[in-house]
Amino acid sequence: MRMYDIIKKKRDGASLTEGEIQFFIDGYVKGEIPDYQAAAFLMAVYYKGMDLDETRALTFAVRDSGVKLDFSGVDGIRVDKHSTGGVGDKTSLVVAPIVASLGVKVAKMSGRGLGHTGGTIDKLESIPGFKTDLSEEEFLKVVNKVGVAIVGQSHELAPADKKLYALRDVTATVDCLPLIVSSIMGKKLAADDDCIVLDVKTGSGAFAKTVEESTTLAKVMVDIGKSAGKKMLALITDMDRPLGLNIGNSLEVIEAIETLKGNGPEDFTKVCVILASNMLYLAGKGSLTECEDMVNDAIKNGTALKTLGDMVEAQHGDSAVIYNPDLFPKAQFSYEVKAEKSGYITRVNTEGYGTASLLLGAGRNTKEESIDYSAGITLIKKTGDKVQAGDVIAILYANDQARFASATAKFISSTIIDDEKPAERPLIFERVE
Amino acid sequence: MRMYDIIKKKRDGASLTEGEIQFFIDGYVKGEIPDYQAAAFLMAVYYKGMDLDETRALTFAVRDSGVKLDFSGVDGIRVDKHSTGGVGDKTSLVVAPIVASLGVKVAKMSGRGLGHTGGTIDKLESIPGFKTDLSEEEFLKVVNKVGVAIVGQSHELAPADKKLYALRDVTATVDCLPLIVSSIMGKKLAADDDCIVLDVKTGSGAFAKTVEESTTLAKVMVDIGKSAGKKMLALITDMDRPLGLNIGNSLEVIEAIETLKGNGPEDFTKVCVILASNMLYLAGKGSLTECEDMVNDAIKNGTALKTLGDMVEAQHGDSAVIYNPDLFPKAQFSYEVKAEKSGYITRVNTEGYGTASLLLGAGRNTKEESIDYSAGITLIKKTGDKVQAGDVIAILYANDQARFASATAKFISSTIIDDEKPAERPLIFERVE
Repeated sequence: MRMYDIIKKKRDGASLTEGEIQFFIDGYVKGEIPDYQAAAFLMAVYYKGMDLDETRALTFAVRDSGVKLDFSGVDGIRVDKHSTGGVGDKTSLVVAPIVASLGVKVAKMSGRGLGHTGGTIDKLESIPGFKTDLSEEEFLKVVNKVGVAIVGQSHELAPADKKLYALRDVTATVDCLPLIVSSIMGKKLAADDDCIVLDVKTGSGAFAKTVEESTTLAKVMVDIGKSAGKKMLALITDMDRPLGLNIGNSLEVIEAIETLKGNGPEDFTKVCVILASNMLYLAGKGSLTECEDMVNDAIKNGTALKTLGDMVEAQHGDSAVIYNPDLFPKAQFSYEVKAEKSGYITRVNTEGYGTASLLLGAGRNTKEESIDYSAGITLIKKTGDKVQAGDVIAILYANDQARFASATAKFISSTIIDDEKPAERPLIFERVE
Repeated sequence: MRMYDIIKKKRDGASLTEGEIQFFIDGYVKGEIPDYQAAAFLMAVYYKGMDLDETRALTFAVRDSGVKLDFSGVDGIRVDKHSTGGVGDKTSLVVAPIVASLGVKVAKMSGRGLGHTGGTIDKLESIPGFKTDLSEEEFLKVVNKVGVAIVGQSHELAPADKKLYALRDVTATVDCLPLIVSSIMGKKLAADDDCIVLDVKTGSGAFAKTVEESTTLAKVMVDIGKSAGKKMLALITDMDRPLGLNIGNSLEVIEAIETLKGNGPEDFTKVCVILASNMLYLAGKGSLTECEDMVNDAIKNGTALKTLGDMVEAQHGDSAVIYNPDLFPKAQFSYEVKAEKSGYITRVNTEGYGTASLLLGAGRNTKEESIDYSAGITLIKKTGDKVQAGDVIAILYANDQARFASATAKFISSTIIDDEKPAERPLIFERVE
């Protein structure tokens, strides 16, 4: 078998065999297939696509390129939730404790943020003392005891994806369905969950701009997950606006805590309740309606919040901040962004908001940069809100006043104010089972 | 400017600016743009193509990537002929002396053969003593004195093409019109001719399989050559069968000599006469009919053959072999290939014939291999001929009998014998001016 022939076959639009895809991934990971052949191949896939069988073979080859985790030491059903990425998306911090408080285990491995998107691990590390690098033994012990633990990846899961993603990133081949599917699902399937709920974002801030595209993406991922023996379900949720009001690490943890107390923003609370209900439903806890009632109860009676507190304690964090978020270290400076004209906020660029938050110090451009946990943005007005010129539309937080100028400029240019009130957009568009 | 954005722009089907194309070629030649980005870009060009302006910009950028030759020391008009490559194509050996004998200068730089295609330089080196590595000074002196000289490339013309071609060769992006045009014309325009006649091959053995494709290719090359200030003309000629009867280095020189004597095979003679006439026409020697008469005279009166003899002498070769081709060293062994069944030769795979010749020792697989000048093939029967089972259809020549088995197998599998007499194919399909 020669990589040249595989490139040519895909170039001409033919379907590749499982063996050919395996040959590519094996050879690429081993360094026997050079980057330039992989790059030409990825561009051919960009144009010619892959059918379901090819996408599945690619996903499984990526999954099998490294170690696979073993969570069999966890008692009971394990469920995970995966989001295709967004700005201000702190749902994991809410749904994981809810689901765990209702008897379903969440053994979650999360990533750090890069560029305009935040990462759950960074957010958790804004809690004083919180450890995200538990040993595998301790990780599973916490899951069994508390019901939930969230840690960073200790092993290199699916190394083929890391190498492929780095190449796609510099060759303009990121936005390609089979490559996205194999990247997300290759890593997810290397973990050891029984059930996976996918939160597939749709809209201007997401890969899939339309509901149709997002639904296609969701269907392929659900199908491939099922053929790997997982219980699967996907929700198509909106990414034309940030979720909730807070962007930034400790700001988002605080918002998650408020949501677990029942005081969260309406949009964010709704998405969390539906995601958590679907996780429970997939784990066999009852009908969707029954699960939704259970979730609302867990918020009302405080067991979900207590589960978060217990997890923080078990992971060596200071749980006092969970029960009293005022204890979080605060940014030294704040700056009020004001509306430049009157009208409605008709559209926001969520990526731009993410970038503004990054410019305030809440994110990193390269893996090596450190993060300012207290920096970020609190939105005062959101898409659809009426504003008067001069109204405060957001408060920026930073520990260095020099950061406000560029962040403000980015924030303003990402906020479109116009005369017409925009049409209401649903929060959740589709459910794929 | 970033290469990423250039890839993305082409990926999405937009036209690139001259500046963007220049940026790519400059950066790639300097090694600042890595192979993997160039590979992704080439595959995007494969699918999205390039318009005439882009193709011209790419061609000029390739031309300008290295030194440009200066033939201003040559007295009179300089004309060149370039073939897009074929098997048994020894036209340069015939048309260059004809044209020179009629007062138009030919300062020709040629290449060596690789794989199934032969190279003019290898063919000339089969003449005892012949030197193809003249100094620039001596080269131009021979051109002025004899009217023609043919040497190998002393300078690295258009180094961008060398690097790009090597990458295209391993990424399945060779067969792509703008890339072919910029490769051929980038090199041609780095030389210093006034007129260029292109011999664009069409048929199963060529890049462009149909006359339409070949004509499109020819038109683009003619257009770009003109915008570089050259007088241009192209002929679309057949490459569904080898030209003439001999394949192999000294065998092809012998056939060229016979053609200059007026004893050449009909098909080959016809193509040579038309190419030479068009070269003279382009150089302003008269109408096409007048030029054709001049060419036929130059063959009849022996001046064309004498010009070849003079060139061989001036380039330190033994001109005795030109006037008595029996003096060429002969291969030690020969083998008669016989028809396996009766019928008509309906189709031959010209690439397969080239490969059979390579297997006999007449070519090289890698640049480092040496060549057996006397090895090769003489065709006894060609496409359209009627054969009886057992008839000799070709004679193979080699200096090692072990080579006959694989060469014979390749030759037989490349010769289709069937019941129906095939339709006659023209030798020359189109003329693009």
